[in-house]
Amino acid sequence: MKLATLKNGTRDGKLAVVSRDLTRFTDASFLAPTLQAALDDWHRIAPHLAALAESLEHDAVPFARFHEHEAHSPLPRAYQWADGSAYLNYVELVRKARGVDMPESFASNPLIYQGGSDSFVPPREPIRAADETWGIDFEAEVAVVVDDVAMGADCDEARAAIRLVMLANDVSLRGLIPAELAKGFGFFHGKPSSSFSPVAVTPDELGEAWDGGKLHLPLIVDLNGKPFGRANAGIDMDFDFPALIAHAARTRPLAAGTIIGSGTVSNRLDGGPGKPVGQGGAGYSCIAEQRVIETLETGKAKTPFLHFGDKVRIEMKDTDGRSIFGAIEQAVEKYEK
Amino acid sequence: MKLATLKNGTRDGKLAVVSRDLTRFTDASFLAPTLQAALDDWHRIAPHLAALAESLEHDAVPFARFHEHEAHSPLPRAYQWADGSAYLNYVELVRKARGVDMPESFASNPLIYQGGSDSFVPPREPIRAADETWGIDFEAEVAVVVDDVAMGADCDEARAAIRLVMLANDVSLRGLIPAELAKGFGFFHGKPSSSFSPVAVTPDELGEAWDGGKLHLPLIVDLNGKPFGRANAGIDMDFDFPALIAHAARTRPLAAGTIIGSGTVSNRLDGGPGKPVGQGGAGYSCIAEQRVIETLETGKAKTPFLHFGDKVRIEMKDTDGRSIFGAIEQAVEKYEK
Repeated sequence: MKLATLKNGTRDGKLAVVSRDLTRFTDASFLAPTLQAALDDWHRIAPHLAALAESLEHDAVPFARFHEHEAHSPLPRAYQWADGSAYLNYVELVRKARGVDMPESFASNPLIYQGGSDSFVPPREPIRAADETWGIDFEAEVAVVVDDVAMGADCDEARAAIRLVMLANDVSLRGLIPAELAKGFGFFHGKPSSSFSPVAVTPDELGEAWDGGKLHLPLIVDLNGKPFGRANAGIDMDFDFPALIAHAARTRPLAAGTIIGSGTVSNRLDGGPGKPVGQGGAGYSCIAEQRVIETLETGKAKTPFLHFGDKVRIEMKDTDGRSIFGAIEQAVEKYEK
Repeated sequence: MKLATLKNGTRDGKLAVVSRDLTRFTDASFLAPTLQAALDDWHRIAPHLAALAESLEHDAVPFARFHEHEAHSPLPRAYQWADGSAYLNYVELVRKARGVDMPESFASNPLIYQGGSDSFVPPREPIRAADETWGIDFEAEVAVVVDDVAMGADCDEARAAIRLVMLANDVSLRGLIPAELAKGFGFFHGKPSSSFSPVAVTPDELGEAWDGGKLHLPLIVDLNGKPFGRANAGIDMDFDFPALIAHAARTRPLAAGTIIGSGTVSNRLDGGPGKPVGQGGAGYSCIAEQRVIETLETGKAKTPFLHFGDKVRIEMKDTDGRSIFGAIEQAVEKYEK
């Protein structure tokens, strides 16, 4: 089934079931008022949501037209957003540009950071920043929402806890990150509010593209209407979602509704760094990667970070070309207090 | 007023108003089912809670005996837990022990990290860890809960957004932190679930001890029944809460219910490092600080981190010797999956 959270003026929005083709929705708030409420009691509520989704497919329940811009992020606020960095190609490139090697441990010990989860931005609302010189960048990712995960869970338990899959735009302020990371406490200012796709789907909706741990489809990233990234999320993912989840649960339990991100999707090209889409490559899922490759190749980054007015669109289509999650589409806007 | 969340088998517990002397409570769930619900709509609900608190003081409403061990952390799960490190004495000591200077920026730019907030531990339940060699430590802190804070809020706006004050035990796994911080993404495994005091109070309950930004009272930390720390939370706090909140809100808004921590309370002694309580000093609010001072003075840390069975108690009393928030009291227990 496919679920969305419709904006209704409340902090958590209203739960809706969306048709497979994303054209229609039916109110699901009589089953659970919000997506978090459904996740809090998933075993009891999910079967009813699934039955409602089936009825919607058959037009057997009242429905209305689904507009992606009326959707909030599926969880408008969450109790946890922990974002991995599972595509080591990207990590390695960034370090290479800085002239430092990859520690060997990175191959076996995933990177993950604790993100802010109290104020996500709806997928069709602007990225707001006070200052363009902060180096505003998008990061296109796949994310999963999990059920309760016990402390010390192994990968099998982690896999069994995956309830929903969606897309993420993990906005990053590249200009603020180096000084922040140098302080040693991780990201804070460098990671403003993220956004998630209009629709979150249960893994069974993904068919063979979902292997239980990775999503094998290209992540479509367009910048100002032009192809920027077409990296396949199933390729070069060095840690799959169960590995990321188990890693996150090593010293504490994860509560239902925890969102785990893949990190910026990134594909190698014949073992080497990628190429822009326009040059026949898979492109990039963030501007920083393109800049790193430019720096490595020419000594200087030439692609600028986002300007006010720029627009990024992140989407994924099934093998028949149909949008699975709806699109994140965000313009960059100057924030005036 | 004083608020608590009573355990009732649900994820968020049930909101209660507690009497000033912590002996009685009255159910407040007819006003707002949970503390988060009250914070979501504070301007409307707080006056009713205050009226109920006043009635409770006069025994004008039904009440029952308040038992601290029946309380959950005031927010059993929260949308954000951002923990500062506002007592630079501690930061400086840790760095000195590592042989590195304090960057000048630390004096003007607060340290803060994004903590996990999905699964707090009740204040009278054990700290569970799978492995004693992880270097289990407590960190006794003061924390505030804020209302919505706009992106870019200044210190005055931040101060006006403080709704509740409480105590925190920010459990740390010292053995896991160095390798984790070396990865550059901040804390994750090193910071398992935190706990908060049984009771959260509005700032007006603190009288002159609260100056709008700092809480000027000793933080009482006992380890296995013996005095370990008596540091005054109002002394040597280099960034007050409004400064920490404004810092946290620099690039994104903070949602109502966000918890901001002070970091480990730490007092200098005559400009130098502190002394144990037994030697006439203010002692320490975590074991790591005592170990750092031992290392600086003798070349070797001798106080061990927590063993299974150890018990830490964190409390604060008003000038008349009455407990303000109730006590966090946690034994360390081996976690068996």
